Amino acid sequence: MTSIFAKILDGEVPATFVYQDELVSAFMDVQPITPGHVLVIPNREVATLSELDETTASHLWRIGHRIALALKNSTLSCEGVNLLLADGEKAGQDIPHLHLHIFPRFRDDGFEWGKERSLSPLASREELQANAAAIKLALQEL
Amino acid sequence: MTSIFAKILDGEVPATFVYQDELVSAFMDVQPITPGHVLVIPNREVATLSELDETTASHLWRIGHRIALALKNSTLSCEGVNLLLADGEKAGQDIPHLHLHIFPRFRDDGFEWGKERSLSPLASREELQANAAAIKLALQEL
Repeated sequence: MTSIFAKILDGEVPATFVYQDELVSAFMDVQPITPGHVLVIPNREVATLSELDETTASHLWRIGHRIALALKNSTLSCEGVNLLLADGEKAGQDIPHLHLHIFPRFRDDGFEWGKERSLSPLASREELQANAAAIKLALQEL
Repeated sequence: MTSIFAKILDGEVPATFVYQDELVSAFMDVQPITPGHVLVIPNREVATLSELDETTASHLWRIGHRIALALKNSTLSCEGVNLLLADGEKAGQDIPHLHLHIFPRFRDDGFEWGKERSLSPLASREELQANAAAIKLALQEL
């Protein structure tokens, strides 16, 4: 267990969680593509889809789907949402612990598929906490 | 039922299927981001995740996951795979019938997240059929 995600799950590195159970965890991306960007990971450190057991896989997708719905219903007032998973370094996977990206889309969010962009700046802990609170509330109301 | 996907399901527009059951269908994208690019859709025409019933949703993710595994195991010899869903026009959804993109990644596939690219050319029916055959075989062997 050496990746940043293992350290987050161990509490060694602080993170702002929106959901956690015995199989998966969801927390705010500290370098959000857009404000409200969430990562969902299996708690067990597996690098790729091939290593994920079927129960955890279906649960991970279900929780990802619910977080997407929560983002859409939340007070973040987004206009759409993207779900993205990269399996393999060549696919853009930067951390060798499987993670599903879910990020809301806004009218002028400056992000375009296929348009060059620089790395997102670090979000402040306050911003992450405010967005997480909005998502958690919307999750409860699903 | 007016989108291109409804016409594909009706058999009005030809498509190369890799999987179909009572809830979802999967077929080759005719303008593949990379060779082997598959779309998975619910058979019922729904535009967004919000309109998808829970049973179909979990099935769609399950089939998408299996197709990703099949791509990785197939003779296409990819190095990774991406799964991408765009909910809402602002998120990049081009057709108002929910669809999950799954596309394999190759060493020199010319695709980079965040790098400008032109629209993919139409693939030949022969190429689509050859890729579909490889994926179907790998699906059977999962």
